[in-house]
Amino acid sequence: MPSPQNDDLAPTPPARELLALNVIRLRQQRGLSQEALAFEAGLHRTFVAHVERQARNISLDNIEKLALALEVPVYRLLKPAASR
Amino acid sequence: MPSPQNDDLAPTPPARELLALNVIRLRQQRGLSQEALAFEAGLHRTFVAHVERQARNISLDNIEKLALALEVPVYRLLKPAASR
Repeated sequence: MPSPQNDDLAPTPPARELLALNVIRLRQQRGLSQEALAFEAGLHRTFVAHVERQARNISLDNIEKLALALEVPVYRLLKPAASR
Repeated sequence: MPSPQNDDLAPTPPARELLALNVIRLRQQRGLSQEALAFEAGLHRTFVAHVERQARNISLDNIEKLALALEVPVYRLLKPAASR
């Protein structure tokens, strides 16, 4: 078995929190409103708001839509910012 | 705006494909059957089979259950293996 990466052993925040923090950070870096991001991703504005409030159990297909709209690989939306 | 990471610009496989390949690889590295992984994750065996066949639009909460059962950070399930 390959040796684990060092971050395999570190506890990470809940997935919904990671997603919310990354979406908020990347959206703001790009100067997008929730509405503009939702439009780019083909989602409803309230959907983006729910994701950012960790209030929604989003599906993988919709995570992918957000990643495409934010122009990052999907995994970046779930990676702790500090370990980049 | 911070400069993008180099992998921001590379096209990545579809998210369902990344998830399937990573789940299969990590499950097999750990010597787990689909049934054993499903049990560890609190999911049904057919659910794991569907994920591995890219036939299911899994939710973030269930991706997190698989990651916990496989003992990796959630983002690792969506990261291209070659860029680790």
